[in-house]
Amino acid sequence: MARLQATYHIRCDAHSIDERARAVAVEQSVEMPVAAIEDEDVLSEIVGRVEGIREIGTDLYEAKISLSAATVGRDAGQLLNMLFGNTSIHDDVTLHDVDVPDDLARAFGGPRHGLDGLRQQARATRRALTCSALKPQGLVAERLAGLARRFADGGIDYIKDDHGLADQAYSPFAERVAAIAGALRGATARYVPSLTGDLDAMRSQIAIARDAGVDTVMIAPMVSGLSNFHRLVADNPGVAFLAHPSFAGAARIAPPLHFGKLFRLLGADAIVFPNHGGRFGYSPDTCRAIAQTALEPRNDLRPCVPVPAGGMSRERVPEMLDFYGSDIMLLIGGGLLEARERLTEATAAFVAAVHNYPYG
Amino acid sequence: MARLQATYHIRCDAHSIDERARAVAVEQSVEMPVAAIEDEDVLSEIVGRVEGIREIGTDLYEAKISLSAATVGRDAGQLLNMLFGNTSIHDDVTLHDVDVPDDLARAFGGPRHGLDGLRQQARATRRALTCSALKPQGLVAERLAGLARRFADGGIDYIKDDHGLADQAYSPFAERVAAIAGALRGATARYVPSLTGDLDAMRSQIAIARDAGVDTVMIAPMVSGLSNFHRLVADNPGVAFLAHPSFAGAARIAPPLHFGKLFRLLGADAIVFPNHGGRFGYSPDTCRAIAQTALEPRNDLRPCVPVPAGGMSRERVPEMLDFYGSDIMLLIGGGLLEARERLTEATAAFVAAVHNYPYG
Repeated sequence: MARLQATYHIRCDAHSIDERARAVAVEQSVEMPVAAIEDEDVLSEIVGRVEGIREIGTDLYEAKISLSAATVGRDAGQLLNMLFGNTSIHDDVTLHDVDVPDDLARAFGGPRHGLDGLRQQARATRRALTCSALKPQGLVAERLAGLARRFADGGIDYIKDDHGLADQAYSPFAERVAAIAGALRGATARYVPSLTGDLDAMRSQIAIARDAGVDTVMIAPMVSGLSNFHRLVADNPGVAFLAHPSFAGAARIAPPLHFGKLFRLLGADAIVFPNHGGRFGYSPDTCRAIAQTALEPRNDLRPCVPVPAGGMSRERVPEMLDFYGSDIMLLIGGGLLEARERLTEATAAFVAAVHNYPYG
Repeated sequence: MARLQATYHIRCDAHSIDERARAVAVEQSVEMPVAAIEDEDVLSEIVGRVEGIREIGTDLYEAKISLSAATVGRDAGQLLNMLFGNTSIHDDVTLHDVDVPDDLARAFGGPRHGLDGLRQQARATRRALTCSALKPQGLVAERLAGLARRFADGGIDYIKDDHGLADQAYSPFAERVAAIAGALRGATARYVPSLTGDLDAMRSQIAIARDAGVDTVMIAPMVSGLSNFHRLVADNPGVAFLAHPSFAGAARIAPPLHFGKLFRLLGADAIVFPNHGGRFGYSPDTCRAIAQTALEPRNDLRPCVPVPAGGMSRERVPEMLDFYGSDIMLLIGGGLLEARERLTEATAAFVAAVHNYPYG
């Protein structure tokens, strides 16, 4: 029977690590005393197996634990539940990595568009993609549409909602999409509205967006629930999905796994994540690993576009392109909005920095 | 305009705490440079406000930050997004507490049944409630039904699915519910099946369960997505909801807030959480605070039943009742299943320990 290969990092002393790793394997599978299990198939297949343990630091161990793919079925929420449900509450353990069998990867399907699809959308054959964000929340739809128009006039590829924009009274989703899609008519820039609420609400938001000609949306999978995220991806093959890291609380799940593997596996075409040197504490190594994980060949899934963000500025564009290469979308929000009445010019300067970079 | 009062704990030195607290207030509201905001209403109402800061330990501060209730609207996922969306990725901050305005609490509604409703279900006027769990996953439906019958014969109130039980091939939800509800026909014990998958899947599971006469279900809100959890609660007022802590990763959100306040606010009638001295690391103080938070008067919400669990045993029943009092449900899973062929007797001994405890 096919198995998932999960890797956990466990803070523990040498004396206890064997027992602690076995405890994690049990917690993430049968969650009961193994001695009380009578069924031979459960003992041989369903109980998590410690496949290997190695020391990776002082009182820090890597434990490889395999879990039966049959416990996951084909549900994304259950994948998370089996990988890290109860163990997320143990603060000595982080979920570091997972390899899923190819048939499970095929069932989830990964990005439906991914890097190549977004490149085609933006008619950007080699260069990096560009993105900004509509903020602050609290503005009425027309004001947001005005900002969008000025971003578009600056030549940007994607204009996403701030992830705080939901379906609030001050700019209801339907009104906002109509105003912004209207303001962008004829422009090459794509509006990327943020989906929020329960599955029904997100479905009707996608319908509203598609009616307005929108073909790319944003979602925060950790808020919406992974099963609902994946359901929307599966039901809307014509729509590209940008995943937002809200509530990822990624200190307990390794960020490359969380964004580059899991969100990609479930169909994110692009993943927003906190860049190093911005408002968040990820190291350059972590960021490089996220981008590599999103792009590298795995389970025959399409590459997913890395979108490093969070306090970026135009001045950092060359350095970021040196660092990440061109298979990337650059997202600058507040750093452009700071230009206020010169928003279009600031956007154009950002776009020029990306377009004119000497790609190898 | 009504505001949420959120409390964060921030690791920081005295020199930087004012700026760090302001940064959290901005991150959790407008997420852009405040200097770039032109709109007066946004500046005065939508931007998060630092209402107070106090030192609570060495390089540890409590920051009270108020957020406009208008940013939340009436959506549970958006509540989480505004309280801790991006800040969950900052590992120097934990979300410690929140007070929501009464009208928002009324909109979410809290437990539809709660402590009194579950007491009535179980015909337990004063005593604590009892619960066990069907495990291990991997067993076929008939085997699980056999376990359920033996728990019921021992006189237990609630028999819940292990949270690992989803809609797997080895015991599909519909088959499992039919078998277990059938096995319990005529018994006073209630079967509590676990809902998994996207909102549509959970809806059809509830329909299957109700058709089989089931009136109490379990859900893991952090896996299903808070919006979907709350939607099911709102759409099924006749059903009682037991909330499971899977994926709560509660080290970054204070457990009393997470379980006792948030899950209760959204309608959990009972909350499973890890008891001290079991397989998880919560202290007695944390556990007492969770139970108090779930039960104490707040926003006119019904009290929610605390369900301390995770490696409990019959021997601990008197100590737990001394500690928590009688407004509680006691859940022993593996500790009963260890009895194997004497499962009914072990269950009966557990039930007797709860029923015969000298309630004050």
